[in-house]
Amino acid sequence: MATAVNDLNVPHRLLLGPGPSAVHPRVLRTMSTALVGYLDPEWLALMDEEQDLLRAVFQTANALTLPMSGTGSTGMETAFCNFVEPGDTVVIGCNGYFSERMCEMARLYGAKVIRIEKPWGAVLTPAEVEETLRAHRPVKIFALIHAETSTGALQPLTGMAEAAHRHGALFLIDCVTSLSGVPLNIDEWGVDVAFSASQKCLGCPPGLSPFTANERALRLLHARKTRVPNWYLDLTMIEKYWNKERLYHHTPSTTLHYGLREGLRLVLEEGLEDRWFRHQAIAEYLWEKMENLGLKLFVPREHRLASLTTVCVPEGVEDATVRTRLREIYNIDIAGGFGPLKGKIWRVGLMGFSSRRENVTLLSEALREILHGRN
Amino acid sequence: MATAVNDLNVPHRLLLGPGPSAVHPRVLRTMSTALVGYLDPEWLALMDEEQDLLRAVFQTANALTLPMSGTGSTGMETAFCNFVEPGDTVVIGCNGYFSERMCEMARLYGAKVIRIEKPWGAVLTPAEVEETLRAHRPVKIFALIHAETSTGALQPLTGMAEAAHRHGALFLIDCVTSLSGVPLNIDEWGVDVAFSASQKCLGCPPGLSPFTANERALRLLHARKTRVPNWYLDLTMIEKYWNKERLYHHTPSTTLHYGLREGLRLVLEEGLEDRWFRHQAIAEYLWEKMENLGLKLFVPREHRLASLTTVCVPEGVEDATVRTRLREIYNIDIAGGFGPLKGKIWRVGLMGFSSRRENVTLLSEALREILHGRN
Repeated sequence: MATAVNDLNVPHRLLLGPGPSAVHPRVLRTMSTALVGYLDPEWLALMDEEQDLLRAVFQTANALTLPMSGTGSTGMETAFCNFVEPGDTVVIGCNGYFSERMCEMARLYGAKVIRIEKPWGAVLTPAEVEETLRAHRPVKIFALIHAETSTGALQPLTGMAEAAHRHGALFLIDCVTSLSGVPLNIDEWGVDVAFSASQKCLGCPPGLSPFTANERALRLLHARKTRVPNWYLDLTMIEKYWNKERLYHHTPSTTLHYGLREGLRLVLEEGLEDRWFRHQAIAEYLWEKMENLGLKLFVPREHRLASLTTVCVPEGVEDATVRTRLREIYNIDIAGGFGPLKGKIWRVGLMGFSSRRENVTLLSEALREILHGRN
Repeated sequence: MATAVNDLNVPHRLLLGPGPSAVHPRVLRTMSTALVGYLDPEWLALMDEEQDLLRAVFQTANALTLPMSGTGSTGMETAFCNFVEPGDTVVIGCNGYFSERMCEMARLYGAKVIRIEKPWGAVLTPAEVEETLRAHRPVKIFALIHAETSTGALQPLTGMAEAAHRHGALFLIDCVTSLSGVPLNIDEWGVDVAFSASQKCLGCPPGLSPFTANERALRLLHARKTRVPNWYLDLTMIEKYWNKERLYHHTPSTTLHYGLREGLRLVLEEGLEDRWFRHQAIAEYLWEKMENLGLKLFVPREHRLASLTTVCVPEGVEDATVRTRLREIYNIDIAGGFGPLKGKIWRVGLMGFSSRRENVTLLSEALREILHGRN
């Protein structure tokens, strides 16, 4: 029975959802490279290069900068299982799906979670952060989602690290959907801990989560009273494989690292600032095309995220029907909303290799045909 | 600086260590396939196929049979974080490196660990298991490493499930280095929970951990008094993505799943029993060649593991020097021992696509040249 399974034969989809984005052909090609062992000197040199590339993309000098072996969620869990100890207070800006996930994980590791509540799609101000941090001292971590994929809002980070540090808290961000697609400067902006994902603006397949933590965060890690209660994501062990000790912890996914290395090379070949500019320009073209179709955008312009745009589903139009037509007739994949936004928005991702002008031209004409008829 | 990083250019190594093994060219090629979204109907159909293929290779009808998103260690951690509750007694057969890791993980999740101690390289008998289980009732889990990569010993499983079940314990095995390389029949042999890894006998890259658990284990999971204390590996959430609910948990690594699907297809095209036979025949050829070179094998013949052979480093020969020469002159990668076997053994893996007669011919002639001179 099972032996009758056919050759892999997947449709050629244009990936314009919240991720995975289209993987760059050079990355796809690189991943068919034969493997080397995880202690081979040539592999160890590749690890060093990968860390250098990641530092350049994160804009950080942090020694502990490495790809965790899993999707963005492992990056998030790495942050909370390593830096939270039972009883710690963690303040989280709550304005979308992924901040809810942060709350869940922080609680799982024993934190007392203080929520700063905002409607989905809104962003936090430094003043309300300051107020909450002051009211709940001592705070161990203040955490934000930089680019919220469930709403399409970009959280400004100005003043946030300063507020966190004034109250002795670590400043932790989820930059899953922003890294290399939206301006981000880990060191200059005072971010202590950050994690991302390979399958968004980096244009690689899912399965690795770029992670960085500075000395301030590591001092807290090394001063823990209790052992990190997660084996696979325990940074005190993982750092010993990625630093000069090269102590085996778990087998890295050679193929995914080959791919990420190529993806990071592409980012730096393009230039980080040019890449941010491209993501912004292509997004603005999308916004213009959507408005020309009479569609409203969910997030006000000043907080709109270039890498993921949320478009309001018009009155009288059925969300799922349109997405099914896009997929079945045009081979285009976009996503719907979830939680309070289910059925109300479409989510259009323009990330990495998916962020190309012709993709927007095609999508908007396909949407026009579906919504207004063919001609 | 970082932008100057070169094209990926890795040496062409023959991987004859404990894993990753050589990835089959068809698997490598398949992984350069463009991605589809993780809720695309075509992707969901691939998930069903992948599960069917895995069931055939595990020889199980278990509904919960899926690849966990990580290396073999995530499979191990999945087993302990889901099926252990604080205070549970877990009995572990301790005869190598990976059983120590099991003890560490079981303790991390609050288990009282009872060790059945054996020297590294020895195997456990059903009688000693029976005795220990009887002495420590109630036992929640009895766990064994089926194929111990650190020693090269194959643990016979006859009578083990019966002993576990007689005392009400779940029978849990690590089959990381045995699945599809050595006879294994999950259902017929009464195994309740098992996990493996993609990069050993399955001949795929590292990054996925095939996992299976039967109804008996799932009843215990669903009756937990406490929440699973690990987010990424929480089977109560992950099963809802892999069953008909298709509830999003984390983004699967599309590329690695494409590769695993192809690897599993190759296993079933060859035929599971023919594949076991091949691994055994090629291993026996290695054993004969090593003995012809005057080398001793570490494990007695009756418990020798086909997928990984441990060869004793001869008196007066320096372990690392030989391995460096193999790598630098012949591009062959084998491994040394660790723990109590450091410097004393070489570990030669013949798994998946690495298990080919010509690889053994080459390795043994290379070793002969290094040990006895060229002629």
